[in-house]
This record gives sequence, structure tokens and C-alpha cells, in this order.
Amino acid sequence: MKAVVVRPPKVGVSIEELKEPEPEPNKVKIRILNTGICGTDREIVNGKLITARPPNGRDYLILGHEAIGVVEENCCGFKKGEIVMPVNRRGCGHCLNCQIGRPDFCETGEFVEAGISGLDGFMREYYYDDPKWLVRVPYEIKDFAVMAQPLSDLEKSLEEILNVQKRVPIWTCDDGTYNCRKALVIGTGPVGTLISLLLKTYGFEVWITNRRELNDMERTIAEEVGLEFYNSANGYDGLKEKVGRFDLIFDASNAFTYIASQVLPLLNYNGILGLFGFPQSGQLSLSYAELQSLIFRSNVIVGLVNGQKPHFEMAMVHLAAWKTMWPKTVKAMITKEVPIEDEKEVKEVIMNKLPSEIKVKIVWSK
Amino acid sequence: MKAVVVRPPKVGVSIEELKEPEPEPNKVKIRILNTGICGTDREIVNGKLITARPPNGRDYLILGHEAIGVVEENCCGFKKGEIVMPVNRRGCGHCLNCQIGRPDFCETGEFVEAGISGLDGFMREYYYDDPKWLVRVPYEIKDFAVMAQPLSDLEKSLEEILNVQKRVPIWTCDDGTYNCRKALVIGTGPVGTLISLLLKTYGFEVWITNRRELNDMERTIAEEVGLEFYNSANGYDGLKEKVGRFDLIFDASNAFTYIASQVLPLLNYNGILGLFGFPQSGQLSLSYAELQSLIFRSNVIVGLVNGQKPHFEMAMVHLAAWKTMWPKTVKAMITKEVPIEDEKEVKEVIMNKLPSEIKVKIVWSK
Amino acid sequence: MKAVVVRPPKVGVSIEELKEPEPEPNKVKIRILNTGICGTDREIVNGKLITARPPNGRDYLILGHEAIGVVEENCCGFKKGEIVMPVNRRGCGHCLNCQIGRPDFCETGEFVEAGISGLDGFMREYYYDDPKWLVRVPYEIKDFAVMAQPLSDLEKSLEEILNVQKRVPIWTCDDGTYNCRKALVIGTGPVGTLISLLLKTYGFEVWITNRRELNDMERTIAEEVGLEFYNSANGYDGLKEKVGRFDLIFDASNAFTYIASQVLPLLNYNGILGLFGFPQSGQLSLSYAELQSLIFRSNVIVGLVNGQKPHFEMAMVHLAAWKTMWPKTVKAMITKEVPIEDEKEVKEVIMNKLPSEIKVKIVWSK
Amino acid sequence: MKAVVVRPPKVGVSIEELKEPEPEPNKVKIRILNTGICGTDREIVNGKLITARPPNGRDYLILGHEAIGVVEENCCGFKKGEIVMPVNRRGCGHCLNCQIGRPDFCETGEFVEAGISGLDGFMREYYYDDPKWLVRVPYEIKDFAVMAQPLSDLEKSLEEILNVQKRVPIWTCDDGTYNCRKALVIGTGPVGTLISLLLKTYGFEVWITNRRELNDMERTIAEEVGLEFYNSANGYDGLKEKVGRFDLIFDASNAFTYIASQVLPLLNYNGILGLFGFPQSGQLSLSYAELQSLIFRSNVIVGLVNGQKPHFEMAMVHLAAWKTMWPKTVKAMITKEVPIEDEKEVKEVIMNKLPSEIKVKIVWSK
Repeated sequence: MKAVVVRPPKVGVSIEELKEPEPEPNKVKIRILNTGICGTDREIVNGKLITARPPNGRDYLILGHEAIGVVEENCCGFKKGEIVMPVNRRGCGHCLNCQIGRPDFCETGEFVEAGISGLDGFMREYYYDDPKWLVRVPYEIKDFAVMAQPLSDLEKSLEEILNVQKRVPIWTCDDGTYNCRKALVIGTGPVGTLISLLLKTYGFEVWITNRRELNDMERTIAEEVGLEFYNSANGYDGLKEKVGRFDLIFDASNAFTYIASQVLPLLNYNGILGLFGFPQSGQLSLSYAELQSLIFRSNVIVGLVNGQKPHFEMAMVHLAAWKTMWPKTVKAMITKEVPIEDEKEVKEVIMNKLPSEIKVKIVWSK
Repeated sequence: MKAVVVRPPKVGVSIEELKEPEPEPNKVKIRILNTGICGTDREIVNGKLITARPPNGRDYLILGHEAIGVVEENCCGFKKGEIVMPVNRRGCGHCLNCQIGRPDFCETGEFVEAGISGLDGFMREYYYDDPKWLVRVPYEIKDFAVMAQPLSDLEKSLEEILNVQKRVPIWTCDDGTYNCRKALVIGTGPVGTLISLLLKTYGFEVWITNRRELNDMERTIAEEVGLEFYNSANGYDGLKEKVGRFDLIFDASNAFTYIASQVLPLLNYNGILGLFGFPQSGQLSLSYAELQSLIFRSNVIVGLVNGQKPHFEMAMVHLAAWKTMWPKTVKAMITKEVPIEDEKEVKEVIMNKLPSEIKVKIVWSK
Repeated sequence: MKAVVVRPPKVGVSIEELKEPEPEPNKVKIRILNTGICGTDREIVNGKLITARPPNGRDYLILGHEAIGVVEENCCGFKKGEIVMPVNRRGCGHCLNCQIGRPDFCETGEFVEAGISGLDGFMREYYYDDPKWLVRVPYEIKDFAVMAQPLSDLEKSLEEILNVQKRVPIWTCDDGTYNCRKALVIGTGPVGTLISLLLKTYGFEVWITNRRELNDMERTIAEEVGLEFYNSANGYDGLKEKVGRFDLIFDASNAFTYIASQVLPLLNYNGILGLFGFPQSGQLSLSYAELQSLIFRSNVIVGLVNGQKPHFEMAMVHLAAWKTMWPKTVKAMITKEVPIEDEKEVKEVIMNKLPSEIKVKIVWSK
Repeated sequence: MKAVVVRPPKVGVSIEELKEPEPEPNKVKIRILNTGICGTDREIVNGKLITARPPNGRDYLILGHEAIGVVEENCCGFKKGEIVMPVNRRGCGHCLNCQIGRPDFCETGEFVEAGISGLDGFMREYYYDDPKWLVRVPYEIKDFAVMAQPLSDLEKSLEEILNVQKRVPIWTCDDGTYNCRKALVIGTGPVGTLISLLLKTYGFEVWITNRRELNDMERTIAEEVGLEFYNSANGYDGLKEKVGRFDLIFDASNAFTYIASQVLPLLNYNGILGLFGFPQSGQLSLSYAELQSLIFRSNVIVGLVNGQKPHFEMAMVHLAAWKTMWPKTVKAMITKEVPIEDEKEVKEVIMNKLPSEIKVKIVWSK
């Protein structure tokens, strides 16, 4: 069968013919339908992700951590024909959080991640998986359900943010909602877009920023969903003047080191800053007065990673809701589909991001 | 303008011509589109709801607490043409929970409820409302959005149940979800149906029961959504044998006094029983041994009432998701539409429940 | 060595000479200092506790689940001479709550309890224990530290009650405390006394009730701690008239079946009833109207069992605080000390409760 | 009557004869017994606290936010002779958190603080106060109860830290306690000492650090309480080697800008850094790799301020417990008592910190 293979830390990616996987007891046979490509895949193929590594005792890794597939045979609670999505991070088996099914909070660091570190990914025609890690996909959202994996990370992130904010006796508005709470999302890529939709779904007022104007696709989404936009090319002073302080700031810029001292002073009393994007360079610098202000205002900074099975399930429900509420947005998020047969194009889209890309998906079968 | 009027505790309902409401500053003018009818309305018109009362200083009450309408003029953050749903319970103004926008937990009992006690309802052509109590309705769900009011009560109920269960260190399964948790819903009317859909949305395994077989419509829903059915005409022993104990039991039967001693022993360790339906007669009886078991198993019984604005907002999102995931179910839930012009029929459906009714709506305008 | 031995379900208790325990690797050798006697012990020796059973493969059980001892040899993080108290319930090993150290929420029911079911207790001169289940006792409270075991059950109970009440957006007063919240404790025995002290420590206003006047010892405690007393010999109507409704009711009467319909109507909006004492007979009866009121007022009933290691640690801190704040009360709680050498008296106090007893302790060594 | 008066931003402090306060309806007359001095007082008298300001319309401010006093006349629920401590921060009256009695989370910044900004403090012979802001002091701890004010800030801080950590599904150990969790406290002044005692009380393993060796008094406390010490004069590398990473780091150094890049890498997976001390100078600098690690490890940084009435009540209970458990420590914490009659010495101790000072108290009456 075909599979997309990498040999980290070597640069490059190849499509290779591998042996079909052997059946395993109590595991579900899955035929892959689509796989999505994300920034992490590109870091791997470009040799930049230091944590990338093949399964133990092997020199290659099958790529891909965003996938939906179809169950090939009845097994273990699943029926032939059901559409499923695998959870990508699997626990260390030792720590308490992994034992209770929450390897997003693994304390040993010995978890594995399909298609990234220590476990083969999903860019292949078939594989077998433990039913424990399979999430049912409603049939009606299958065309864009591959978004549920990146969305799961943001479901977990917002859940964690709201959990942290329970530290504040009252963080809801005088009507019990979040409607008066202002959220600022830095970055308008896939992560920035998905968290904006989610924040809106939870009732927040949402501002999105980029250092350039929105493109047409982004403008369509912002209008349909009701997102406010601010061009931060000249910094954030104008935003503070116009809108005031923010209750929640979500960094999806991968460049927080460069903007920290501009962005942190935008936090309101009791406000929270969520860091999701990994900064790739730079040095964060904060004056003692800015740090004082952070303390004085009871602010929180929280590092955010990885969604788990409950968050995949929440993502399916939200994608289904968005299909109804924001049909243009949902459509716009799938930037391109490339059939696996078109190997040259597949390699091209894995290596390089398209302009205005939100999600490119590889089609393995129908 | 036309309005549906009651004079509790008198039996009966009339459609009367009332003066149009006067504009009020900082209030939004709303033209009613649809109103829903529920069991509480029927208790009022049949003189059985002892808490029913007109606004102070008046002998009549406009009926109706389930409505969607359209904004007639730009005002106070709302734009002409937006579709909105009003929150029905309004706070006492004194207690802390009402001050923070959560009159569902009012501690004085001095709250009012539109169309029920102390405040006019929504069965009229026009009215003005405080923007604080208006919830935006996504345009794409407007045909069945009237379900969001009863659903809001169940959003709140499930939220409260899950909050209570945080008393248990781990109440999720070994994959972090609720997929292994068994829920039993007693009653297959509108409340039973809505809570079943919601429990399924949150990942629970759901059993529904009634003392008769399901009708066609109910069977359609159960199949599409994936609900298991048990006929409890001969009690619950067979259910325990077949399925075992339940982690969550939700009473929507209005007859819990009669079944308590059969149902409570079905609770699993750490299980919770939610009481939503008001029992109308009977005497609950429990032996000391059954009470011992409840203590020994760390069970909880919780009384559940009223959803507030955050729950209306959650309801909108879930209705939008269900339209995608379970289209037949969403369609089946609107049993009948009656135009306000057909006064005889309107009065008929307000006085008497239809067979297999989930929701009957009165159409005021388009 | 000497040990107190029972053979459930046979009535009676004997003091027998048993072989000293063998050393076990990574277990701490403990010399028992004191053991407490409680109602459960008396149910066992009187053949009334149906769950009482010896360890597998044995016909006798060493009694005792309340004990403090001294470490005999340095081992496994403990030093010779440290005073420790063992946790009495040990987990099933399978369910998630037991895996994370919280067998108080065991979901299989396969836990064991030292001195009660499936595991030898602490009424013996020496034994070995896993350091995981040993709680350090501050030296300065050793004279009454045996109270920490029953107190741990109530620490857990109040923790669970407060966790459940987080369902209410605001359940604290307008100064952020519980000072305006009224608690009613039914029963003035050891359980009633300890929970009253704890509720007072958390800032509640506390009423205690009994069907007779307080005796001198109880009056001393009530005065020092600041507890209000109500004689319920003629029911609870007078209490409601005098004080109004209660936010928290704690049943420590072992007779809730008989008083349910009098006590439940005392619950305030959002109020909670904690059931701790096991009713021993009777039939609970509630009218549909009383059940309606429970729902309408958003009340909760919760079954409460067993404290675990974190609750033992909290109990040590509270006993230390009470020694400072309420010295007469702490002193009054140890009703009698009986040396193990006085075998006749030991058997007598195990079989029969003393008048006005709070805690009788057997002294094994100094 | 005598009072300690400041005129911020002027440097200096004077003891002046002021008019006795007039009685106010429903306010309690209080005779001050002791007042404590803290770093904030010294910033005020040295003209360094920019937020210091007199009540509106006045040019002077009575100093002092740590005090205990005695009730002079029965009033409003308090009895003559009761010992009380006033809460120092009072709310803005507008925001929801202030309305529910939690001005520690005020969102307008318009709160006032007795003896600091906008409200007279407690360094005077008599004053009247609203009963809402008075906390009862157990008589037996009155000699050191003035510590309860600074301790309340740390009760709140640890409560908030534990609330934030509920974001982690399991942050307790495999016995349900915090006994395996390592806490690092930076700074051994009053704040560092009090938080160390509190962390120990909650079951954490605690390391304390300073850039010098402990003095005798500090060593006495560390030994009695069981705190580990690390001398950080040469940085923190040795600590990481010896102990590993920490689950909780608490900065009480007022110099976090200088040590951030050494200290943040000590955080364990899911670890939290609490910032309490206000950095007075310097520039915090973090590399992108250190920021990546913070995100990857799901760390949190939280700014911590101000305890409120519930935290004062908790502080009283803990001081009472510590008197029993750690008598030498409690004694050591009151460094010196100065009678108000000795005006020169009073001014001296307000202006300048003593060597090894934990708490200096001014005695106003007995």
C-alpha cells in the first residue's frame, strides 16, 4: 500500500509502497479517506522539528496526524462503514493523567504522537487501531471533518482557559453569559481562525489581528461569523484606544517573543493570555513595570497543548453546528483537495504552504 | 394587536385585541414570529398551576414563554431584521444570584416568569424588551428555534448535573470521555426527548423508557440518534438485568412519586438522579435499606429548574448541530404549526395536547 | 502479642494472643499506641453489620479502624519515633478512583476496610503497613489524635458538600464567607459533634438538635464553640418559626427515615441535605408536594461516606487548631481511656456505649 | 487620640493627636490593640508607593492595614470585649466581584485600601467600622493574630493556585494528597515564611531559597516545620540537579525580573509559577526556547494579590493550628513589640526594617 514516509531529521518526504498492516486482535481495520496537512508536518519534512522521531527500532516514520477513515470490518463496538477519526497523542501508561485517558497532561513526557514522534501516522491506505482511540464522525460533516483534529487542540485550549478562569469568583457578565468579554486572537491562520470561531460559539466578542489586511477568504469568514479585525502592522496602541483592554488574549502567531511587551499590557483585570503557537526565534523582554502590572491585575499566562478524545467529540459537534450557522466559512476552510495518486502535487503541498491556506487535504479514497 | 390572554386561576383562554405596546427607551421592539406551547401553558389554562398570576395590579396575563421574534428597529446593539428569543425568567433584583444574571438560582423566590407569573408573556404581535434578555437566533435554525426555550432548561440541568459530579474525582471514562457512562431517561415526551439528544451530544450511552411501546415518530428519533429503548410497563427489573446500573437517571415522567423505589436502586456507585418533572400526585416511599444503599453508593438526588441566558445560547448551538447530524429528528420535533388567524384551532391546541406531540407552534408572522 | 478478635457474624469479642507479624519489605513496623471505638465496632461485635468479614481464607478478623501508633524502625521515608495514623479503607485496585488514591469513590465496591471487611484492623500490639497509607500525626495532638479517623469522614463529607454547592453560581455571602449560611446538624453524638465543629471552623452558623436536652458535656461544647441548640422532641415546626430555613442540613441521627418529611421542608432555596448516618429501620415517606418543593427549590440530597488520606491530613490540622481555640471541647471529647491490660473493661466498652460517650480509647502502649 | 499619619508622596511619618472619631449608626466602635508593620508601609513612608493617597478631600492618611482591636460596645452582632481584625481592602461597589464581597478580584481598580489608598488605616487609638468587614479573632491567638492580615493574602494566593490547577485532571498524588508535589519558595522574608508554612500545612514538600545562608531564626523555623533550604547565591542549577523540577514555584523575592530565566526552567510538566512579590527594577528576559518549554509543559504563570474576608477566617484557623504544631515558629515570627508611647522607636521601626525581621508590632493598648 501507499504511504507518506519521512526520515527525520532528514529533509524531504517520499511516497513509498509499504506492506499492508497485519490484522491485530481487538483492533479495528481502517481505510483512510482523507488526511490533513499542518504546520507540524511541514516542520518535520523540513527537518526543523527536533522532537520528530520514528517508532523505536526503525529509521522511517509514516507521516500524518490528521485523518478520517472508514471502518472496514465490524469489530470491537464499531460497524463496517462507520466513519472515524483517530486521536493522535497516546499516553505514557505510567502517570496518573495518562492512566485516566488524559495524555494531554502527561507528566513524564513519554507519550507518543502518531506521525510525529514514536508512532506511525495516518498517511497510508490502511491501518489497525485500538477502538479506545477512535472517535465517531457524523456522516454529514465528513467532507471537512479532518478539521476536527486541529480543532480538538483548541477545544482543549478553551476548556483549559475557562477552567483556569474559575479562579475568578465571577467572570461571566451580568446576564450570566460571556457576551461582554472581549477576546483578542493574534494570527489569522488555521489556528487563529478555529479558535475565533470557537470563542464566538461560546459567546465572546472576538477581535482578530494580523500585520496585514485580511484577504478575501478571511474577510468572508470574518463577516459571516461576526469577527472584528485590527491591522497590527503599526503595533497595538490603536487597538487599545479603540477597544480598551481584553479579557482573553490568544496567541496563534508563533512569534510571541516579538510582541509580548505590546500585547501583555492589553490584558484587563483578571485577564488571561493563552500561548498556543510555538515561538520560533527571538527573545521575550518585559520591564519590571509591565510585570508589576501583570501581578496587580491578577493576570494569568497559560501554555496550551493537545486535545484529547473528549475534545475530538466536542469538535465534531461544533463542526456540525458551524455547517448550519456559518456554511460559507466551513466551505472556505478546505483550501484544496489533492488525490494521493497525484504524487508530485502531494509532495508539493506537504513541503510548502499555499497562499491563504487554511486546510489542504489529501484524498486517499472515497 | 392580537394576544392570547388568560385570567388565572380561571379555566380558559381567549384571543383578545389589545393596545399596541408603547415604545420604551433602550428597549428593543420585537415582532413575534412563533410561539411554542408547553405543559405549563396547559396547566395555566386549565387552572392547575397555583403559581400562575398576572402582573401586579392587573387581572389578566398574556400567555407564552417560548417565542422567537424579529427586531423591528435598530436599537441598543440589535439590528432590524435580527431574529431573537427572549429569556423567560427575570430576577428578583435583590439576591446575589439574580444580581449576577442567574435567576435560575434566585434565593428569594421573588423572580417573575413571562407568561406564567407576574410578567406578560410572548403570545402577542409586538412587544418591547430589555436587550439584556434577548438571545440571538441563527437564521438557519429559525424554523425550529422555538425549541431552544425548553432546551435551555435541559442545558442548565445537564450543566448542573455535571457540576455536581465534579464531587467525584474521576467521573469520566478511561479515554477521558463520558462514552462508558450510562444514562436513563424516564419519559419520552418533549423533555425526555430533548435531554436524550443532549446526553447523546455529550457522549453518554442513553436508554429511554416509557410504559408503552414507542410510536413511529419516537422510533425514528431513537434510531437516528442512537437511543436504546426499554418498555417499563412491568417495572424496571428487566432493565437492571439487561443493562446493569446507571450512572445518571433523569426523571421527566411527572410521576416520580410512583416509581422512586423501583428507580433509585438502579443507581450505580457515584450515580446521580436528576428530578425535572413535577410529580402531580402520589406519595414517595423508600425503605431504610434503599436509603442505606443510596448513602453507601454516594448517590445524589438533585432538583432541576430553569435555564438562563447562557443556556439559551448553548441551546442555539446544539440545535444548529442537530440540524446537521440528526435532520429527521429536528424535523419530527415540530409536530404542528397553527396560524394565529385560525383562532379556534389555536385555542384548541393550547387547551389540549395532541397525540405524539413534541412541539406545537403558533405562527404570528413570517 | 495481644489482639482484639471478632468472628462475624458471631456475636462477641475476645482478646487473644496472636503471633507477632513478620517483617515485610518496604513496609513500616508500627507499635500501636491507642485505638478508638466507634458505633461500627459495636455493630460488628453485636453481629449486626452484614458487610463485616475476615480477610479471605480466615475465620477471624482483628477489630479496629481508628488507631495511632509509633514507627518502630526507620523505613521508607518514616523515622523511628514518628507518630502515625493508618488510613482504614484501601482501594479495589481496578477502578479509576482507586487508582488515583480515592477509594472513597470506589466504583466496584471491592475495596477493603481494616477492622471491618476483608482486612485486619489495628487493635493489636504491632503490625506492618505500606507507607502510602500512613498519615503523620503532630506530636502535640497525640492524646486525642485518634479522633482524626472519624473526623476524616466528616472532612470528606463537608468537602463533597462544598464541591456539590459549586453548582450554585454564588453560595457565599455578600462578604465572600459562609457566615450568613445556616447549618442544621441532627444528632449530638460523636459524628454530630465533629461535623458541628467543622462547620463552625468553615464559618457557618450552626444549630444542633436532639430529641432531649443537652447533657453537661454537650452544653460545655456548645458554649465554647458557639453552637445553637434546639430540642426536637416535639418536631421541627418551632425551629422553622424561630430560625427560618437552612442552607445545609446534616443528618447524623441514624434515623432519617422517621424525620425526612419534617426535615426536608426546612431546606432553603439551593439548600443541600447530607445523609451520613445509616438509618437502621423505618420507611421514608414524602408527599408529591414535598417532592415538588425540593425540585422547585433546587435542593440536593447527597449520600456521604469515608474520608481518605487527604482528609486525614486536614483532620490533623483542624484538631491542632481546635486544641488552641476550643481546649475544653477537645478535652471533653475523650470520654474514657481503658488500658489493654484491663481485658474485662476493654470488652465491656467495645460491647456497650457509655452514657454521654464521644470517644473511648484503648491504650496499648505509651 | 494618637494616630500615625503620612502625607504621600512626601517622605516621612508623624505621630499626631487627632480628634476621636464620631459614632456612626450600625458601626462598631473598636479600640486598637496592635498594629503590624509591613513592606508596603515602608514604601509609603519612603515615598515610593505611587498608589498611596489620602481619602478624597484630605491631605493626610492614617497609616496601617494590619491591626487587631477590641470591640468597645455591643453593636450589630458583636459583643463588647470580642477581639476583631478588620479586612483592609474594600470594594468599588460597581463590579460583580465587589458586589459579591470579593474585591480581591475588583475589575474597575476603584477599590480602596485602608492605610494605603483612599481610606484611613488602623494606626490610631479608636475607630468605627462596618461589621461586614470585621473578622473574629480567637482569644488564644491574640498575641500574634496580627500575622493574619499578611497570611490572608497568602491564603488567597494558595487558594487561587489550587483553583487554577484544577485545569489538570489529576494534580494530586497516587494517595490523593499533595505529598509528592514539590514547591519552591523564593525568598525567606515574612511572605516567604508564611507561604512555606501554608504549603506545608496543605501537604506539599517545600524548599525555600535565599541568596545567603539562613540566619538562626530562619533555621529554627525550617527545622521545626520541616522545610528544605537551598542557597541560590550561585544560581539554581545545583537545585535542579539535586531535587529535579518543581510543581509549584512561589516568588516572594520582589526581584523576579532578575531570576526569571533561571527559575522558569525549573517548572515541571503542569507546573505553576505564582508571582506575589512586586519586582522593583530590572528587565525580564526569556529566550524563545524557554518560552517554547513553558508552552510544551502546560505551565501557568499567575499574578497574585490580596486576601479577603474568607481568607482572614482561614488565616485564623491556621494560626491556631500552628500554635499547637509549631510553637517555636509562631513565637519567632513576632520579632519585636514597640509601645505607641515610645514615639521615637515607633517612627524608627516604621521607617526601617530590622535585621531578621518577620513582624514588628506596635502595641496601642492591652
